[in-house]
Amino acid sequence: MDIVLVGLGVIGGSFAQALKSAGYADVYGVDTDAQTVQKAKERALIADGGTDAAQWLPRGDLVIVSLYPLLLAPFMRQNMRHFKGGCVVTDTTGVKTMVVDAITALLRDDVDFVFGHPMAGREKKGIDFADARVFAGANYLITPTPRNQEKNIVAVEDLMRRLGFGSVRRITPALHDEMIGYTSQLPHALAVALVNSDDHQRDTGSFIGDSYRDLTRIANINAELWSELFLGNRDNLLAAIHAFQQELETIRRAVEQGDKQTLTACFARSSARREALQK
Amino acid sequence: MDIVLVGLGVIGGSFAQALKSAGYADVYGVDTDAQTVQKAKERALIADGGTDAAQWLPRGDLVIVSLYPLLLAPFMRQNMRHFKGGCVVTDTTGVKTMVVDAITALLRDDVDFVFGHPMAGREKKGIDFADARVFAGANYLITPTPRNQEKNIVAVEDLMRRLGFGSVRRITPALHDEMIGYTSQLPHALAVALVNSDDHQRDTGSFIGDSYRDLTRIANINAELWSELFLGNRDNLLAAIHAFQQELETIRRAVEQGDKQTLTACFARSSARREALQK
Repeated sequence: MDIVLVGLGVIGGSFAQALKSAGYADVYGVDTDAQTVQKAKERALIADGGTDAAQWLPRGDLVIVSLYPLLLAPFMRQNMRHFKGGCVVTDTTGVKTMVVDAITALLRDDVDFVFGHPMAGREKKGIDFADARVFAGANYLITPTPRNQEKNIVAVEDLMRRLGFGSVRRITPALHDEMIGYTSQLPHALAVALVNSDDHQRDTGSFIGDSYRDLTRIANINAELWSELFLGNRDNLLAAIHAFQQELETIRRAVEQGDKQTLTACFARSSARREALQK
Repeated sequence: MDIVLVGLGVIGGSFAQALKSAGYADVYGVDTDAQTVQKAKERALIADGGTDAAQWLPRGDLVIVSLYPLLLAPFMRQNMRHFKGGCVVTDTTGVKTMVVDAITALLRDDVDFVFGHPMAGREKKGIDFADARVFAGANYLITPTPRNQEKNIVAVEDLMRRLGFGSVRRITPALHDEMIGYTSQLPHALAVALVNSDDHQRDTGSFIGDSYRDLTRIANINAELWSELFLGNRDNLLAAIHAFQQELETIRRAVEQGDKQTLTACFARSSARREALQK
Protein backbone atom coordinates (compact mmCIF):
# COMPACT_ATOMS: atom_id res chain seq x y z
CA MET A 1 0.00 0.00 0.00
CA ASP A 2 1.43 3.37 -1.04
CA ILE A 3 0.71 6.19 1.40
CA VAL A 4 0.92 9.85 0.42
CA LEU A 5 1.20 12.51 3.12
CA VAL A 6 -0.05 15.94 2.06
CA GLY A 7 1.39 18.54 4.41
CA LEU A 8 4.57 17.71 6.32
CA GLY A 9 4.17 20.14 9.20
CA VAL A 10 4.16 19.15 12.86
CA ILE A 11 1.20 16.78 12.36
CA GLY A 12 2.03 15.42 8.90
CA GLY A 13 5.64 15.00 10.01
CA SER A 14 4.51 13.14 13.12
CA PHE A 15 2.48 10.78 10.92
CA ALA A 16 5.59 10.22 8.80
CA GLN A 17 7.53 9.28 11.94
CA ALA A 18 4.76 7.04 13.23
CA LEU A 19 4.40 5.26 9.88
CA LYS A 20 8.14 4.69 9.70
CA SER A 21 8.23 3.28 13.24
CA ALA A 22 5.29 1.02 12.37
CA GLY A 23 7.24 -0.36 9.41
CA TYR A 24 5.50 1.34 6.48
CA ALA A 25 8.13 1.86 3.77
CA ASP A 26 6.13 3.18 0.80
CA VAL A 27 5.36 6.58 2.25
CA TYR A 28 5.59 9.68 0.04
CA GLY A 29 5.33 13.31 1.03
CA VAL A 30 3.99 16.51 -0.51
CA ASP A 31 4.53 19.97 0.92
CA THR A 32 4.48 23.44 -0.66
CA ASP A 33 7.77 24.14 1.13
CA ALA A 34 10.68 22.48 -0.73
CA GLN A 35 12.93 22.72 2.35
CA THR A 36 10.41 20.75 4.40
CA VAL A 37 10.29 18.00 1.78
CA GLN A 38 14.09 17.98 1.72
CA LYS A 39 14.26 17.59 5.51
CA ALA A 40 11.71 14.74 5.39
CA LYS A 41 13.83 12.93 2.80
CA GLU A 42 17.12 13.52 4.64
CA ARG A 43 15.60 12.18 7.84
CA ALA A 44 14.24 9.22 5.88
CA LEU A 45 10.73 10.04 7.06
CA ILE A 46 9.49 9.58 3.49
CA ALA A 47 10.71 7.37 0.66
CA ASP A 48 10.35 10.24 -1.78
CA GLY A 49 8.25 13.33 -2.41
CA GLY A 50 8.07 16.87 -3.69
CA THR A 51 6.12 20.11 -3.87
CA ASP A 52 3.79 19.13 -6.72
CA ALA A 53 0.72 17.24 -5.50
CA ALA A 54 -0.25 16.33 -9.09
CA GLN A 55 2.92 14.24 -9.33
CA TRP A 56 2.45 12.21 -6.13
CA LEU A 57 -1.29 11.93 -5.45
CA PRO A 58 -1.86 9.44 -8.33
CA ARG A 59 0.10 6.75 -6.48
CA GLY A 60 -1.65 7.12 -3.13
CA ASP A 61 -3.80 4.15 -2.07
CA LEU A 62 -4.13 6.09 1.18
CA VAL A 63 -3.73 9.86 1.37
CA ILE A 64 -3.39 11.62 4.75
CA VAL A 65 -3.99 15.35 4.36
CA SER A 66 -2.66 17.52 7.21
CA LEU A 67 -3.45 21.08 6.15
CA TYR A 68 -4.91 24.10 7.93
CA PRO A 69 -8.73 23.91 8.06
CA LEU A 70 -9.32 26.60 5.45
CA LEU A 71 -6.80 25.07 3.03
CA LEU A 72 -8.33 21.58 3.03
CA ALA A 73 -11.38 22.07 0.77
CA PRO A 74 -9.52 24.22 -1.79
CA PHE A 75 -6.76 21.60 -1.95
CA MET A 76 -9.29 18.83 -2.56
CA ARG A 77 -11.08 20.85 -5.23
CA GLN A 78 -7.90 21.74 -7.11
CA ASN A 79 -6.48 18.22 -6.97
CA MET A 80 -9.56 16.01 -7.19
CA ARG A 81 -8.62 14.78 -10.66
CA HIS A 82 -5.19 13.61 -9.45
CA PHE A 83 -6.38 11.12 -6.81
CA LYS A 84 -5.98 7.41 -7.59
CA GLY A 85 -9.23 5.60 -8.39
CA GLY A 86 -10.46 3.66 -5.33
CA CYS A 87 -8.16 5.49 -2.95
CA VAL A 88 -8.98 6.36 0.65
CA VAL A 89 -8.35 9.90 1.86
CA THR A 90 -8.31 11.04 5.48
CA ASP A 91 -7.60 14.36 7.21
CA THR A 92 -6.46 15.60 10.61
CA THR A 93 -8.70 18.65 10.96
CA GLY A 94 -9.81 19.65 14.47
CA VAL A 95 -13.28 20.77 13.40
CA LYS A 96 -15.50 18.54 11.31
CA THR A 97 -18.95 19.78 10.24
CA MET A 98 -17.41 22.58 8.21
CA VAL A 99 -14.99 20.37 6.27
CA VAL A 100 -17.26 17.32 5.96
CA ASP A 101 -19.98 19.34 4.23
CA ALA A 102 -17.61 21.27 1.98
CA ILE A 103 -15.56 18.25 0.88
CA THR A 104 -18.32 15.66 0.54
CA ALA A 105 -19.91 17.97 -2.04
CA LEU A 106 -16.92 17.79 -4.36
CA LEU A 107 -15.69 14.18 -4.02
CA ARG A 108 -15.33 11.88 -7.00
CA ASP A 109 -17.42 8.69 -6.72
CA ASP A 110 -14.28 6.54 -6.67
CA VAL A 111 -12.60 8.51 -3.89
CA ASP A 112 -13.63 7.68 -0.30
CA PHE A 113 -12.87 10.38 2.29
CA VAL A 114 -12.83 9.06 5.87
CA PHE A 115 -12.78 12.13 8.10
CA GLY A 116 -10.49 11.76 11.13
CA HIS A 117 -9.18 13.83 14.04
CA PRO A 118 -6.05 12.77 15.93
CA MET A 119 -6.50 14.45 19.31
CA ALA A 120 -2.82 15.13 19.72
CA GLY A 121 -0.41 17.76 18.61
CA ARG A 122 2.02 20.38 19.74
CA GLU A 123 1.78 24.12 19.96
CA LYS A 124 4.91 24.47 17.82
CA LYS A 125 4.70 24.53 14.02
CA GLY A 126 6.71 22.72 11.39
CA ILE A 127 8.40 19.41 10.71
CA ASP A 128 11.22 20.23 13.15
CA PHE A 129 8.72 19.75 16.00
CA ALA A 130 7.15 16.60 14.59
CA ASP A 131 7.07 13.86 17.22
CA ALA A 132 5.14 10.60 16.81
CA ARG A 133 5.14 10.13 20.59
CA VAL A 134 2.27 12.61 20.89
CA PHE A 135 0.04 9.94 19.29
CA ALA A 136 0.87 7.28 21.90
CA GLY A 137 -2.31 6.47 23.82
CA ALA A 138 -4.08 9.56 22.49
CA ASN A 139 -7.72 9.72 21.40
CA TYR A 140 -8.55 9.43 17.70
CA LEU A 141 -12.00 10.37 16.40
CA ILE A 142 -13.61 9.36 13.10
CA THR A 143 -16.75 11.07 11.80
CA PRO A 144 -18.22 8.67 9.20
CA THR A 145 -20.43 9.90 6.38
CA PRO A 146 -23.21 7.91 4.64
CA ARG A 147 -21.05 7.51 1.55
CA ASN A 148 -18.10 5.95 3.40
CA GLN A 149 -17.43 2.26 2.72
CA GLU A 150 -17.26 0.28 5.98
CA LYS A 151 -14.04 -1.47 4.92
CA ASN A 152 -12.34 1.88 4.43
CA ILE A 153 -13.41 3.17 7.84
CA VAL A 154 -12.11 -0.05 9.40
CA ALA A 155 -8.82 0.31 7.48
CA VAL A 156 -8.28 3.81 8.91
CA GLU A 157 -9.24 2.62 12.40
CA ASP A 158 -6.75 -0.27 12.21
CA LEU A 159 -3.99 1.97 10.91
CA MET A 160 -4.46 4.52 13.68
CA ARG A 161 -4.32 1.82 16.34
CA ARG A 162 -1.10 0.54 14.75
CA LEU A 163 0.29 4.07 14.90
CA GLY A 164 -0.22 4.08 18.66
CA PHE A 165 -3.54 5.81 19.31
CA GLY A 166 -5.15 4.50 22.47
CA SER A 167 -8.84 5.03 21.76
CA VAL A 168 -10.29 5.12 18.23
CA ARG A 169 -13.96 6.12 18.19
CA ARG A 170 -16.69 6.92 15.66
CA ILE A 171 -19.03 9.85 16.25
CA THR A 172 -21.13 12.23 14.20
CA PRO A 173 -19.51 15.46 12.96
CA ALA A 174 -22.07 17.41 15.00
CA LEU A 175 -21.23 15.66 18.29
CA HIS A 176 -17.52 15.88 17.49
CA ASP A 177 -17.67 19.64 17.11
CA GLU A 178 -19.82 20.05 20.20
CA MET A 179 -17.41 18.02 22.35
CA ILE A 180 -14.27 19.61 20.87
CA GLY A 181 -15.70 23.06 21.54
CA TYR A 182 -15.74 22.13 25.21
CA THR A 183 -12.72 19.81 25.68
CA SER A 184 -10.22 21.50 23.36
CA GLN A 185 -11.21 24.96 22.17
CA LEU A 186 -12.58 26.27 25.48
CA PRO A 187 -9.40 25.29 27.39
CA HIS A 188 -7.31 27.13 24.80
CA ALA A 189 -9.54 30.20 25.14
CA LEU A 190 -9.14 30.08 28.95
CA ALA A 191 -5.36 29.72 28.81
CA VAL A 192 -5.07 32.67 26.42
CA ALA A 193 -7.39 34.85 28.51
CA LEU A 194 -5.52 33.89 31.72
CA VAL A 195 -2.13 34.90 30.33
CA ASN A 196 -3.51 38.05 28.72
CA SER A 197 -5.19 39.16 31.95
CA ASP A 198 -1.82 39.40 33.71
CA ASP A 199 -1.20 42.92 35.02
CA HIS A 200 1.99 41.86 36.69
CA GLN A 201 4.14 41.15 33.64
CA ARG A 202 7.32 42.46 35.21
CA ASP A 203 7.88 39.45 37.39
CA THR A 204 5.12 36.87 37.27
CA GLY A 205 7.68 34.08 36.94
CA SER A 206 8.71 34.35 40.60
CA PHE A 207 5.17 33.80 41.81
CA ILE A 208 4.01 30.78 39.84
CA GLY A 209 3.59 27.15 40.77
CA ASP A 210 2.81 24.09 38.67
CA SER A 211 -0.85 25.04 38.41
CA TYR A 212 -0.12 28.24 36.48
CA ARG A 213 2.43 26.47 34.30
CA ASP A 214 -0.02 23.69 33.45
CA LEU A 215 -2.89 26.04 32.71
CA THR A 216 -0.90 28.40 30.52
CA ARG A 217 1.26 25.98 28.49
CA ILE A 218 -1.29 26.02 25.66
CA ALA A 219 -1.47 29.82 25.72
CA ASN A 220 1.57 29.52 23.47
CA ILE A 221 -0.61 28.84 20.47
CA ASN A 222 -0.55 28.67 16.66
CA ALA A 223 -2.54 31.87 16.05
CA GLU A 224 -3.50 31.13 12.44
CA LEU A 225 -4.56 27.53 13.05
CA TRP A 226 -6.56 28.23 16.19
CA SER A 227 -8.37 31.27 14.87
CA GLU A 228 -9.52 29.06 11.98
CA LEU A 229 -10.60 26.33 14.42
CA PHE A 230 -12.44 28.79 16.70
CA LEU A 231 -14.30 30.47 13.84
CA GLY A 232 -14.96 27.11 12.18
CA ASN A 233 -16.85 25.93 15.28
CA ARG A 234 -18.45 29.23 16.27
CA ASP A 235 -21.79 28.17 17.79
CA ASN A 236 -20.41 25.23 19.78
CA LEU A 237 -17.55 27.30 21.16
CA LEU A 238 -19.87 30.17 22.09
CA ALA A 239 -22.11 27.72 23.96
CA ALA A 240 -19.12 26.24 25.81
CA ILE A 241 -17.79 29.69 26.75
CA HIS A 242 -21.25 30.72 27.96
CA ALA A 243 -21.63 27.64 30.19
CA PHE A 244 -18.15 28.27 31.60
CA GLN A 245 -18.88 31.94 32.24
CA GLN A 246 -21.90 30.95 34.31
CA GLU A 247 -19.87 28.53 36.46
CA LEU A 248 -17.12 31.10 36.99
CA GLU A 249 -19.71 33.72 37.92
CA THR A 250 -21.11 31.33 40.53
CA ILE A 251 -17.65 31.11 42.10
CA ARG A 252 -17.07 34.87 41.82
CA ARG A 253 -20.36 35.65 43.53
CA ALA A 254 -19.65 33.13 46.30
CA VAL A 255 -16.26 34.80 46.95
CA GLU A 256 -17.88 38.24 46.88
CA GLN A 257 -20.55 37.19 49.36
CA GLY A 258 -18.25 35.12 51.58
CA ASP A 259 -20.44 32.11 50.78
CA LYS A 260 -18.17 29.27 51.89
CA GLN A 261 -20.88 26.65 51.49
CA THR A 262 -21.28 27.32 47.76
CA LEU A 263 -17.50 27.36 47.26
CA THR A 264 -16.93 24.02 48.98
CA ALA A 265 -19.85 22.57 46.99
CA CYS A 266 -18.27 23.73 43.71
CA PHE A 267 -14.92 22.27 44.75
CA ALA A 268 -16.43 18.96 45.86
CA ARG A 269 -18.30 18.67 42.54
CA SER A 270 -15.25 19.40 40.40
CA SER A 271 -13.09 17.05 42.49
CA ALA A 272 -15.53 14.15 42.08
CA ARG A 273 -15.77 14.75 38.32
CA ARG A 274 -12.02 15.03 37.86
CA GLU A 275 -11.44 11.87 39.89
CA ALA A 276 -13.92 10.04 37.63
CA LEU A 277 -12.14 11.24 34.50
CA GLN A 278 -9.46 8.99 33.01
CA LYS A 279 -6.08 10.26 34.18
CA MET B 1 19.06 23.02 66.19
CA ASP B 2 15.82 21.30 67.19
CA ILE B 3 13.04 21.68 64.65
CA VAL B 4 9.37 21.13 65.54
CA LEU B 5 6.83 20.53 62.78
CA VAL B 6 3.27 21.45 63.72
CA GLY B 7 0.89 19.70 61.36
CA LEU B 8 2.09 16.56 59.55
CA GLY B 9 -0.27 16.65 56.59
CA VAL B 10 0.82 16.66 52.96
CA ILE B 11 2.88 19.86 53.43
CA GLY B 12 4.19 19.25 56.95
CA GLY B 13 5.00 15.68 55.96
CA SER B 14 6.84 16.89 52.87
CA PHE B 15 8.93 19.20 55.08
CA ALA B 16 9.71 16.22 57.31
CA GLN B 17 10.92 14.30 54.25
CA ALA B 18 12.94 17.25 52.94
CA LEU B 19 14.57 17.87 56.33
CA LYS B 20 15.50 14.21 56.62
CA SER B 21 17.02 14.17 53.13
CA ALA B 22 18.95 17.34 53.97
CA GLY B 23 20.42 15.62 57.02
CA TYR B 24 18.48 17.25 59.84
CA ALA B 25 18.13 14.65 62.61
CA ASP B 26 16.54 16.60 65.50
CA VAL B 27 13.12 16.98 63.93
CA TYR B 28 10.00 16.52 66.07
CA GLY B 29 6.39 16.38 64.97
CA VAL B 30 3.03 17.44 66.40
CA ASP B 31 -0.32 16.53 64.89
CA THR B 32 -3.81 16.27 66.37
CA ASP B 33 -4.14 12.90 64.66
CA ALA B 34 -2.26 10.22 66.63
CA GLN B 35 -2.20 7.86 63.64
CA THR B 36 -0.42 10.51 61.56
CA VAL B 37 2.22 10.97 64.25
CA GLN B 38 2.62 7.20 64.41
CA LYS B 39 3.14 6.97 60.65
CA ALA B 40 5.70 9.79 60.77
CA LYS B 41 7.63 7.92 63.45
CA GLU B 42 7.42 4.54 61.71
CA ARG B 43 8.70 6.11 58.49
CA ALA B 44 11.48 7.80 60.50
CA LEU B 45 10.34 11.18 59.18
CA ILE B 46 10.57 12.56 62.73
CA ALA B 47 12.82 11.64 65.66
CA ASP B 48 9.84 11.78 68.00
CA GLY B 49 6.55 13.58 68.49
CA GLY B 50 2.98 13.44 69.69
CA THR B 51 -0.44 15.06 69.72
CA ASP B 52 0.23 17.56 72.52
CA ALA B 53 1.84 20.77 71.26
CA ALA B 54 2.53 21.90 74.84
CA GLN B 55 4.91 18.96 75.24
CA TRP B 56 6.97 19.54 72.08
CA LEU B 57 6.90 23.27 71.29
CA PRO B 58 9.24 24.16 74.21
CA ARG B 59 12.17 22.43 72.51
CA GLY B 60 11.76 24.05 69.08
CA ASP B 61 14.51 26.44 68.05
CA LEU B 62 12.64 26.51 64.74
CA VAL B 63 8.93 25.72 64.44
CA ILE B 64 7.32 25.13 61.04
CA VAL B 65 3.54 25.36 61.31
CA SER B 66 1.59 23.76 58.44
CA LEU B 67 -2.07 24.22 59.39
CA TYR B 68 -5.16 25.34 57.50
CA PRO B 69 -5.33 29.16 57.25
CA LEU B 70 -8.15 29.54 59.78
CA LEU B 71 -6.44 27.25 62.32
CA LEU B 72 -3.12 29.10 62.37
CA ALA B 73 -3.98 32.14 64.53
CA PRO B 74 -6.02 30.15 67.06
CA PHE B 75 -3.15 27.68 67.39
CA MET B 76 -0.65 30.48 68.01
CA ARG B 77 -2.92 32.12 70.58
CA GLN B 78 -3.55 28.93 72.52
CA ASN B 79 0.11 27.86 72.51
CA MET B 80 2.00 31.14 72.70
CA ARG B 81 3.22 30.41 76.21
CA HIS B 82 4.75 27.09 75.12
CA PHE B 83 7.19 28.44 72.53
CA LYS B 84 10.89 28.43 73.42
CA GLY B 85 12.36 31.87 74.17
CA GLY B 86 14.24 33.20 71.15
CA CYS B 87 12.73 30.68 68.76
CA VAL B 88 11.89 31.30 65.12
CA VAL B 89 8.45 30.30 63.83
CA THR B 90 7.44 30.05 60.19
CA ASP B 91 4.27 28.98 58.39
CA THR B 92 3.23 27.63 55.00
CA THR B 93 -0.01 29.55 54.49
CA GLY B 94 -1.01 30.45 50.93
CA VAL B 95 -2.49 33.83 51.89
CA LYS B 96 -0.54 36.31 53.97
CA THR B 97 -2.15 39.66 54.88
CA MET B 98 -4.85 37.89 56.89
CA VAL B 99 -2.48 35.76 58.96
CA VAL B 100 0.33 38.33 59.30
CA ASP B 101 -2.00 40.88 60.89
CA ALA B 102 -3.75 38.38 63.16
CA ILE B 103 -0.60 36.69 64.40
CA THR B 104 1.71 39.69 64.73
CA ALA B 105 -0.82 41.12 67.19
CA LEU B 106 -0.42 38.22 69.62
CA LEU B 107 3.29 37.33 69.40
CA ARG B 108 5.55 37.29 72.45
CA ASP B 109 8.53 39.68 72.18
CA ASP B 110 10.97 36.75 72.29
CA VAL B 111 9.26 34.81 69.49
CA ASP B 112 10.09 35.84 65.91
CA PHE B 113 7.54 34.74 63.28
CA VAL B 114 8.96 34.74 59.73
CA PHE B 115 5.99 34.32 57.42
CA GLY B 116 6.67 31.99 54.47
CA HIS B 117 4.83 30.41 51.55
CA PRO B 118 6.24 27.34 49.79
CA MET B 119 4.63 27.55 46.34
CA ALA B 120 4.32 23.82 46.02
CA GLY B 121 1.91 21.18 47.11
CA ARG B 122 -0.43 18.48 45.98
CA GLU B 123 -4.18 18.35 45.68
CA LYS B 124 -4.27 15.24 47.89
CA LYS B 125 -4.46 15.56 51.67
CA GLY B 126 -2.55 13.84 54.41
CA ILE B 127 0.89 12.48 55.23
CA ASP B 128 0.42 9.52 52.85
CA PHE B 129 0.74 11.98 49.94
CA ALA B 130 3.69 13.89 51.40
CA ASP B 131 6.49 14.16 48.84
CA ALA B 132 9.52 16.42 49.27
CA ARG B 133 10.10 16.37 45.51
CA VAL B 134 7.37 18.98 45.04
CA PHE B 135 9.76 21.50 46.66
CA ALA B 136 12.56 20.87 44.16
CA GLY B 137 13.11 24.04 42.15
CA ALA B 138 9.82 25.54 43.36
CA ASN B 139 9.27 29.17 44.34
CA TYR B 140 9.37 30.13 48.03
CA LEU B 141 8.07 33.51 49.19
CA ILE B 142 8.81 35.30 52.47
CA THR B 143 6.76 38.29 53.62
CA PRO B 144 8.94 40.04 56.24
CA THR B 145 7.42 42.21 58.96
CA PRO B 146 9.07 45.21 60.68
CA ARG B 147 9.59 43.18 63.85
CA ASN B 148 11.48 40.34 62.12
CA GLN B 149 15.20 40.08 62.92
CA GLU B 150 17.28 40.01 59.74
CA LYS B 151 19.30 37.01 60.90
CA ASN B 152 16.12 35.00 61.36
CA ILE B 153 14.82 35.84 57.89
CA VAL B 154 18.21 34.83 56.46
CA ALA B 155 18.10 31.58 58.45
CA VAL B 156 14.73 30.65 56.96
CA GLU B 157 15.93 31.62 53.47
CA ASP B 158 19.04 29.45 53.81
CA LEU B 159 17.04 26.51 55.13
CA MET B 160 14.53 26.65 52.28
CA ARG B 161 17.30 26.70 49.69
CA ARG B 162 18.85 23.69 51.39
CA LEU B 163 15.49 21.92 51.20
CA GLY B 164 15.52 22.35 47.43
CA PHE B 165 13.51 25.46 46.66
CA GLY B 166 14.74 27.12 43.46
CA SER B 167 13.82 30.73 44.07
CA VAL B 168 13.49 32.27 47.56
CA ARG B 169 12.15 35.82 47.48
CA ARG B 170 11.01 38.53 49.88
CA ILE B 171 7.88 40.55 49.14
CA THR B 172 5.25 42.46 51.07
CA PRO B 173 2.17 40.58 52.28
CA ALA B 174 0.03 42.86 50.09
CA LEU B 175 1.97 42.11 46.88
CA HIS B 176 2.07 38.41 47.80
CA ASP B 177 -1.69 38.21 48.07
CA GLU B 178 -2.22 40.22 44.90
CA MET B 179 0.11 37.96 42.89
CA ILE B 180 -1.20 34.73 44.41
CA GLY B 181 -4.76 35.77 43.60
CA TYR B 182 -3.73 35.81 39.97
CA THR B 183 -1.11 33.03 39.65
CA SER B 184 -2.62 30.44 42.00
CA GLN B 185 -6.19 31.13 43.07
CA LEU B 186 -7.53 32.27 39.68
CA PRO B 187 -6.18 29.15 37.90
CA HIS B 188 -7.89 26.95 40.49
CA ALA B 189 -11.16 28.86 40.00
CA LEU B 190 -10.88 28.37 36.22
CA ALA B 191 -10.16 24.65 36.48
CA VAL B 192 -13.13 24.14 38.80
CA ALA B 193 -15.47 26.17 36.58
CA LEU B 194 -14.24 24.33 33.47
CA VAL B 195 -14.95 20.89 34.92
CA ASN B 196 -18.28 21.99 36.40
CA SER B 197 -19.45 23.47 33.09
CA ASP B 198 -19.31 20.05 31.43
CA ASP B 199 -22.72 19.04 30.04
CA HIS B 200 -21.29 15.93 28.49
CA GLN B 201 -20.48 13.95 31.63
CA ARG B 202 -21.39 10.58 30.13
CA ASP B 203 -18.30 10.29 28.02
CA THR B 204 -16.01 13.31 28.14
CA GLY B 205 -12.97 11.06 28.60
CA SER B 206 -13.04 9.88 24.98
CA PHE B 207 -12.81 13.43 23.69
CA ILE B 208 -9.97 14.94 25.69
CA GLY B 209 -6.37 15.67 24.85
CA ASP B 210 -3.47 16.82 27.00
CA SER B 211 -4.78 20.37 27.13
CA TYR B 212 -7.95 19.38 28.99
CA ARG B 213 -6.01 17.04 31.29
CA ASP B 214 -3.51 19.79 32.17
CA LEU B 215 -6.14 22.45 32.73
CA THR B 216 -8.37 20.30 34.93
CA ARG B 217 -5.79 18.47 37.08
CA ILE B 218 -6.18 21.08 39.84
CA ALA B 219 -9.98 20.86 39.68
CA ASN B 220 -9.43 17.93 42.04
CA ILE B 221 -9.05 20.25 44.98
CA ASN B 222 -9.01 20.30 48.78
CA ALA B 223 -12.41 21.96 49.26
CA GLU B 224 -11.87 23.10 52.85
CA LEU B 225 -8.38 24.50 52.31
CA TRP B 226 -9.17 26.33 49.08
CA SER B 227 -12.40 27.87 50.27
CA GLU B 228 -10.43 29.32 53.19
CA LEU B 229 -7.73 30.59 50.80
CA PHE B 230 -10.29 32.12 48.40
CA LEU B 231 -12.23 33.88 51.16
CA GLY B 232 -9.00 34.92 52.87
CA ASN B 233 -7.94 36.83 49.75
CA ARG B 234 -11.33 38.08 48.64
CA ASP B 235 -10.56 41.46 47.05
CA ASN B 236 -7.45 40.32 45.17
CA LEU B 237 -9.18 37.21 43.82
CA LEU B 238 -12.23 39.23 42.75
CA ALA B 239 -9.95 41.65 40.89
CA ALA B 240 -8.13 38.77 39.16
CA ILE B 241 -11.40 37.08 38.17
CA HIS B 242 -12.74 40.38 36.84
CA ALA B 243 -9.66 41.01 34.67
CA PHE B 244 -9.88 37.45 33.37
CA GLN B 245 -13.60 37.79 32.60
CA GLN B 246 -12.85 40.83 30.47
CA GLU B 247 -10.17 39.01 28.44
CA LEU B 248 -12.44 36.00 27.93
CA GLU B 249 -15.27 38.28 26.85
CA THR B 250 -12.95 39.85 24.26
CA ILE B 251 -12.35 36.39 22.81
CA ARG B 252 -16.04 35.45 23.00
CA ARG B 253 -17.09 38.59 21.17
CA ALA B 254 -14.43 38.07 18.49
CA VAL B 255 -15.72 34.52 17.90
CA GLU B 256 -19.32 35.77 17.84
CA GLN B 257 -18.46 38.48 15.30
CA GLY B 258 -16.10 36.34 13.21
CA ASP B 259 -13.35 38.84 14.02
CA LYS B 260 -10.27 36.81 13.05
CA GLN B 261 -7.94 39.80 13.44
CA THR B 262 -8.75 40.23 17.14
CA LEU B 263 -8.43 36.47 17.75
CA THR B 264 -5.02 36.20 16.13
CA ALA B 265 -3.91 39.30 18.07
CA CYS B 266 -5.02 37.70 21.37
CA PHE B 267 -3.21 34.47 20.47
CA ALA B 268 -0.03 36.28 19.40
CA ARG B 269 -0.03 38.26 22.67
CA SER B 270 -0.51 35.19 24.88
CA SER B 271 2.11 33.23 22.92
CA ALA B 272 4.73 35.96 23.33
CA ARG B 273 4.00 36.25 27.07
CA ARG B 274 4.07 32.50 27.63
CA GLU B 275 7.35 32.19 25.71
CA ALA B 276 8.85 34.88 27.93
CA LEU B 277 7.76 33.09 31.09
CA GLN B 278 10.22 30.72 32.74
CA LYS B 279 9.32 27.18 31.61
